[in-house]
Amino acid sequence: MVPHVVVIGGGFGGLAAARVLTGKPVRVTLVDRRNHHVFQPLLYQVATATLSPGDIAAPIRWILRKASNVRVLLGDARTVDVVGRRVVLTDGGVLEYDFLIVATGARHAYFGHPEWEEHAPGLKTLDDALVMRRRILLAFERAEREEDGARRLELLTFVLVGGGPTGVELAGTLAEITRQTLRNEFKSIDTTRARIVVVEAGSSILASFPDDLRDAARTSLGRLGVEVRENTMVTSIDAHGVDLMSGDAVERVAAGTTLWAAGVAASPLVKTLGVPIDRAGRAVVESDLSIPGRPEVFVVGDAAAFLHRGEPLPGVVQPATQGATHAAQTILRRVRGEMPRPFVYRDLGNMAIVGRASAIADLGWIRFSGLIGWLAWLFLHIAKLIGFRNRVVVLIEWAVAYVTFQRGARLITGNDRSTKWPQ
Amino acid sequence: MVPHVVVIGGGFGGLAAARVLTGKPVRVTLVDRRNHHVFQPLLYQVATATLSPGDIAAPIRWILRKASNVRVLLGDARTVDVVGRRVVLTDGGVLEYDFLIVATGARHAYFGHPEWEEHAPGLKTLDDALVMRRRILLAFERAEREEDGARRLELLTFVLVGGGPTGVELAGTLAEITRQTLRNEFKSIDTTRARIVVVEAGSSILASFPDDLRDAARTSLGRLGVEVRENTMVTSIDAHGVDLMSGDAVERVAAGTTLWAAGVAASPLVKTLGVPIDRAGRAVVESDLSIPGRPEVFVVGDAAAFLHRGEPLPGVVQPATQGATHAAQTILRRVRGEMPRPFVYRDLGNMAIVGRASAIADLGWIRFSGLIGWLAWLFLHIAKLIGFRNRVVVLIEWAVAYVTFQRGARLITGNDRSTKWPQ
Repeated sequence: MVPHVVVIGGGFGGLAAARVLTGKPVRVTLVDRRNHHVFQPLLYQVATATLSPGDIAAPIRWILRKASNVRVLLGDARTVDVVGRRVVLTDGGVLEYDFLIVATGARHAYFGHPEWEEHAPGLKTLDDALVMRRRILLAFERAEREEDGARRLELLTFVLVGGGPTGVELAGTLAEITRQTLRNEFKSIDTTRARIVVVEAGSSILASFPDDLRDAARTSLGRLGVEVRENTMVTSIDAHGVDLMSGDAVERVAAGTTLWAAGVAASPLVKTLGVPIDRAGRAVVESDLSIPGRPEVFVVGDAAAFLHRGEPLPGVVQPATQGATHAAQTILRRVRGEMPRPFVYRDLGNMAIVGRASAIADLGWIRFSGLIGWLAWLFLHIAKLIGFRNRVVVLIEWAVAYVTFQRGARLITGNDRSTKWPQ
Repeated sequence: MVPHVVVIGGGFGGLAAARVLTGKPVRVTLVDRRNHHVFQPLLYQVATATLSPGDIAAPIRWILRKASNVRVLLGDARTVDVVGRRVVLTDGGVLEYDFLIVATGARHAYFGHPEWEEHAPGLKTLDDALVMRRRILLAFERAEREEDGARRLELLTFVLVGGGPTGVELAGTLAEITRQTLRNEFKSIDTTRARIVVVEAGSSILASFPDDLRDAARTSLGRLGVEVRENTMVTSIDAHGVDLMSGDAVERVAAGTTLWAAGVAASPLVKTLGVPIDRAGRAVVESDLSIPGRPEVFVVGDAAAFLHRGEPLPGVVQPATQGATHAAQTILRRVRGEMPRPFVYRDLGNMAIVGRASAIADLGWIRFSGLIGWLAWLFLHIAKLIGFRNRVVVLIEWAVAYVTFQRGARLITGNDRSTKWPQ
């Protein structure tokens, strides 16, 4: 019987591992609690009504349809029993393994304030993106019907907590929507006067980028009318806004919509491995990405704390795919009786969009900003998107959005607890 | 002050009325509880994962952006006070009117069995379609993990209650998905053996079509492996299937997924008008579509019972747009001091899709079936879809689906009460 490899998670890490193991002398079971892989770097475009969920997602089962030694299951892993070598699912199902790759990613975390989640949703899944989209679009509809001037200003204020790529990308797109897409569609409000505030606790937005690119991003955001508050902490969040603290100064920003793009924490499954975890809940891994004392169990991507130049690898695509590829290759080496090798991360660079036709890109050997950065971003994201159909449709959506300023997916659907209006 | 016309509903009727009134000497307020218009004839394609919600919907506000005398509001009308001439919204808002057009459509209705809804969702809104999509896709995922043979067969059985166009279109698409799209993607189940049953209480499916087209449809469905049960009543529905009765014979069909495409009832707002309603809750209207004794209040589309050749007009697009156009024109006549004219319905025909490259179309003077019917259907639906972007994207989705058998929107998102699995 060939060894059984269980991969938990169908994100960038899990898929990369499955691809390395396809056609090799192992049986693979990939389990995910969703039926689809999501292209997370474009989630913010679903949240801001540019793209439809179907444009940036594909069924995991379809992606791996030609991998005859890979079985795809829909299921939610609750615990790992590293001694019994088995994964237990929430519905009681059990998957026994010879090798395990944990690629379960991270959720947003609220720094010990879980009560903030209701008022400041985060962005990790398609369902999260639909909640954000609903809240953003409802804010304008409510403002249109609001007769009280102060409340109307509040409804037209958007606070983004966190000045990393997600916060900046959301802010830039919101600026374009309010300044262009929605202008002239409302009779009582002027959407171009909407206030957009990015709050960053650290000394700079986009901390992972070099100084000159951060300056370029700040200039772009300023031109879009986005307020950037650096060195500023959020001390409370409720349904009507946020309290900020900068040094000794405190400030209240009345805002109808607050969106979370700050802390993340590794998936709770990691805790059940029984190994040391860091403050963000990530498993501290060995040099080959296995966990201490269990060379057959690997943790990759956002769920792992792997130090690179003294810092844990960031929660983006490259560390996840490279780590998962390494873990899968290590499994194949061990199946062949070879020794594992240490994981070496290759930093391929860093990109972020800062509004219409403007992006920053740091590829190490070269840096771009503005239009060239944007074209590089566009090319890379289309090339990496899974599925021919998705590429074509996304290109059309972007072309239409660019030329007409319109958005293809301005739908308010579903409902969440705190926005049961007006249904 | 020019007269104020309130239009309730942004479906085909409400939009047609707003268009007639655009630029005319009236102020118009269109209120809908959703921010988007839905192209309902294609809802079944969202339910079956071919199209994304954004492909068949457009923001009402955007559709009417150039209509400077039309205001669009998001709000849920609860009651009409015909004496005080005002509409009261669920959030307490009030809209006073000089003329009112009620175009609130219909919901599915369960013939006195509201408890069936949980087990047999219907299809009237985008949210309904996403619930159906979730249930259909989950059925296969559950079957893949099911070890009990009988239960697996149950999960691979789909019952469509109602043999009208929606039931037939859902059945045909389900057949294509199970026979083509999903084959080879599962390791434990053979999706091509899924059972699809259409149950029709009347003597024939597609009762509104002539005999020869119904025969053609029955042949098409048979070729697709769809079981058609005519003269068969559903006597109960639960989570594990349906009970059927045909004459004296009773039968239990074990089915994991039951979908409702049978009865509808007019929106409950109609009751608050205080006029006679028929069994389906529709207002009985005068010859000009106004309600008895209130010449300034009109009811159109699915919410009205207007007799044409002795039968109420069916709940499809043409009666809604023609009726709303007539009501709006009648308002303009009255503003000009002219007499109202009676509404005369022009029957432009009837179409239904019955699987891949096959449809039936009855245009009165000519009938099509098979490929030519399908091309006619395709052309008409693309032409009527609102928004250039939507037309292009839908054409691409259809081309990809036709050539590759793949579906662009196979995503399980959201959750509803009875399918909290496996989260």
